[in-house]
Amino acid sequence: MVMKYGILYGIGVGPGDPYLMTVKGARVLERCRHVFVPKARSENGSIALAIAGRYLGAGCQVHELVFPMSDDRGELSLRWTEAARSVAGVLGTGEDACFLTLGDPFLYSTYIYLVRSLREQLPGVEAITVPGITAFSAAAAMAEFPVGEGRERVVIVPASDNLDTVGEALAGGGTVILMKVGKRLAAVLDLIEKAGFLDRAVYVSRAGLDGQQVATDLRKLRQERMEADYLSILLVHAGG
Amino acid sequence: MVMKYGILYGIGVGPGDPYLMTVKGARVLERCRHVFVPKARSENGSIALAIAGRYLGAGCQVHELVFPMSDDRGELSLRWTEAARSVAGVLGTGEDACFLTLGDPFLYSTYIYLVRSLREQLPGVEAITVPGITAFSAAAAMAEFPVGEGRERVVIVPASDNLDTVGEALAGGGTVILMKVGKRLAAVLDLIEKAGFLDRAVYVSRAGLDGQQVATDLRKLRQERMEADYLSILLVHAGG
Repeated sequence: MVMKYGILYGIGVGPGDPYLMTVKGARVLERCRHVFVPKARSENGSIALAIAGRYLGAGCQVHELVFPMSDDRGELSLRWTEAARSVAGVLGTGEDACFLTLGDPFLYSTYIYLVRSLREQLPGVEAITVPGITAFSAAAAMAEFPVGEGRERVVIVPASDNLDTVGEALAGGGTVILMKVGKRLAAVLDLIEKAGFLDRAVYVSRAGLDGQQVATDLRKLRQERMEADYLSILLVHAGG
Repeated sequence: MVMKYGILYGIGVGPGDPYLMTVKGARVLERCRHVFVPKARSENGSIALAIAGRYLGAGCQVHELVFPMSDDRGELSLRWTEAARSVAGVLGTGEDACFLTLGDPFLYSTYIYLVRSLREQLPGVEAITVPGITAFSAAAAMAEFPVGEGRERVVIVPASDNLDTVGEALAGGGTVILMKVGKRLAAVLDLIEKAGFLDRAVYVSRAGLDGQQVATDLRKLRQERMEADYLSILLVHAGG
């Protein structure tokens, strides 16, 4: 008897609005029996599960995986290995499993590390990835802010711990997308002001989730000197 | 009596696979009575309509808008104005209208120009944009190619007429996404080879459409010296 592994479905649930899931993602979830959901802290709920929950079939078992917000590469690597082991446990029985991820699975997502670690543990396993709406597409739609136009380039920078790269991107022209702004909001707004683009930028936080915020007056936002949610984004037109 | 304009729904239909439409986009289309679809030539069908056709309600009227592939800004501007006038004609009767767009509406899409022109003609008109899966997310999912990882930046460049910008992007590190490669494929592959990244790149053409192609051996692809489809993309890991 040849035992076949189950298939891993990596599903991007989009940035927040449950109806921004893809039809494909919703269909895969409807017949899914095991769904793995990432969350940042064991005592909190999973945002990805809150978004996709309505699509889960009745008999679906939810497995929570805790990925702490950490910069410790060693600890993170350990967590990914453990998470992949849990997923491999289900796939090893021949059953399929879904892994939910916010936004798009291959754009700054834990899914990248999970798949890598899973392939080390189960070489040859089949993984099918269902892309998701990125937070910047949702933010652009809400603020009616063109991201890519004509021949201009678009630069995406995760801004959480990367102020030099943010400055370089703003100096390089085109559209700059600053993701995961979080605690660095004030510093990032200072950089945008210094570059002269404060009137050509928008801020969107928690798009489609509770506490959603869309700000087009960044001078006012800057004066408030607040911290942003981790799920927040700045879109900047940085010139030709 | 106060006459209200209808609402414009700009709907990203994604890169090709009908099931990569969002649930929201599909629902809006189901109850839509007027749908505007862009196409490149009057004698060809609309790709966006082929993707989204299955979601249209029975009584929906399809309006075709021809946007020729042209570099002549004057001609393009005239076409956008005419297209916006057609859309305004429907909205002016108080009925809603949908406009379909490949990929995501605010990422290198005709929708940007259409909305701009429409707002000149009907100031204060309501437009609701439904984001779509970008071609690069679909390509990344097919090739299992991480796009954004850790602190690295991502640069998106429309490659069709932009070889200098392509070279600069490759020199800048992170992940480089080259969209709409088309006729410049051979020249772009030469640049990637020169930068030393030919083994760290993938090519995806017509993702989810007839004639789909996924190539991970770019040395072989380069030897073939072929032209690519307009709807083709290169993803390149350009180093730290």
